[in-house]
Amino acid sequence: MMRLYDFLDSGNGYKVRLLLNQLGRTFELVLMDIDRGETRTEAFLRINPNGRIPVLEISPERRLSESNAILFYLAEGTPFLPEGAFERAQVLQWMNFEQYSHEPNVATPRYWIRHGLMKEDKAPLLEQKRKQGYAALDVMEGHLSGKNFLVAGQYTIADICLYAYTHVAEEGGFDLSAYPALEIWLERIRNHPGHVPITWQP
Amino acid sequence: MMRLYDFLDSGNGYKVRLLLNQLGRTFELVLMDIDRGETRTEAFLRINPNGRIPVLEISPERRLSESNAILFYLAEGTPFLPEGAFERAQVLQWMNFEQYSHEPNVATPRYWIRHGLMKEDKAPLLEQKRKQGYAALDVMEGHLSGKNFLVAGQYTIADICLYAYTHVAEEGGFDLSAYPALEIWLERIRNHPGHVPITWQP
Repeated sequence: MMRLYDFLDSGNGYKVRLLLNQLGRTFELVLMDIDRGETRTEAFLRINPNGRIPVLEISPERRLSESNAILFYLAEGTPFLPEGAFERAQVLQWMNFEQYSHEPNVATPRYWIRHGLMKEDKAPLLEQKRKQGYAALDVMEGHLSGKNFLVAGQYTIADICLYAYTHVAEEGGFDLSAYPALEIWLERIRNHPGHVPITWQP
Repeated sequence: MMRLYDFLDSGNGYKVRLLLNQLGRTFELVLMDIDRGETRTEAFLRINPNGRIPVLEISPERRLSESNAILFYLAEGTPFLPEGAFERAQVLQWMNFEQYSHEPNVATPRYWIRHGLMKEDKAPLLEQKRKQGYAALDVMEGHLSGKNFLVAGQYTIADICLYAYTHVAEEGGFDLSAYPALEIWLERIRNHPGHVPITWQP
C-alpha cells in the first residue's frame, strides 16, 4: 500500500489526500508535526532531503516529493488529467502559477497566523505578500469568469491544486467577497463527487 | 512559426531558448524589456494576464506561460523527457523544487543586484534568501554526488531547468566553491551538444 507523509493543516498535503480519495485509492497516512520539527529530523531528511511534506512513498525505493509532481503522477491515465499535449501543459502552467505566484503569497500569511509566527517584523513582508496574493487571485478571477474549471472545461488536478489554498485564503486575511467567479468556482469544486475537507484522513 | 516572448537576462526564458535550440526548433523571438515595464502593458497582459515572460505562442489562439510548463510541452515525445511515469514525475518534482525552493532564493538576489533594486531595506530579506538559497543548493549537491544528471541518468528538462539559475548563482552573490558535485554537473551541462549561453538568441 502507498504511504503518504503529511500534515493535516497543509494545503499542499490536502491536494494529494483529496485526489487519492477521488481516485478511490487506499493509502497509509503518516502524520508529521511540522511545528515540532518532525520534517527536519535526520530520519525524515533521508525520506525527503528538502525536509518538506507531502511525500508519497510508492515503494521503499520509490518516493516522490512536491505536491504538484505527486498529483501529476497519480492523475496520469485518469480523467483528472486531460490527454491532449496542450491541455496537459495548461494544467502544468496553472500548477506552476500556484507554486510561484499564489502559494508563497496566499498560503504563507495563513501559515504565519495559524502557527504563531505573525511577529511585527514581518509587517513589510506581509504587505508585499498581500499585494502579490491579491494579484494572483485577480489572475484566477479573470480566467474563471465564464468558465467552469481552469483547463479544458473539466475538473482536473489544476483545480485541486489551486483550490487547496484558495479555499482557506480568508484564514490568511484575504477577503474574497470581490471575487464572484472565484467563489462560484470554489463552490463547484466543493460539490464535486468525492470531495473531502482539508483535515480529512482515511 | 512559434513565437517566444522573452527577456535575454532571464533564466526562466533561457530554459526555453536552450531547449528549443537543442531540439533544433526554429522560432521567432520577441524581446520584452521588463525594466521598462513592457510585460505589464495592457497589450502584454492580454498575452499573459500574470504579466511575466517567457510566453510561448504556438498559434494566435494557443499560448503557454510558466517556463517549466513550456519545457514539458516541448519535451513530450523527445529524449529530453523520460517515458516512465515515475521518472516523468521525478522530472516534475525537480522542476517544482526549482520554482519553490531554488528560484525565489537563488535567482531573486541576482535580479535585485543586476537591476539596481538592491536597496538597504532589503537586507533582512536578502539574508533569509541567502540561507534558503544555500539550503536548496545543498539539496542539489547531495543528490548529484555520484550522479551524472538529476533524473534517470540522462540529460532531461530537469537539468535544463535547474542549470538556468544555478550557473549564474554567483552573479547573485552565492559562492559555489564548496559544491564540487554541482560544479562538475554544471560543466557536464555546458558540454552537452547544442548548448548555448543565457544571452543566446536565434
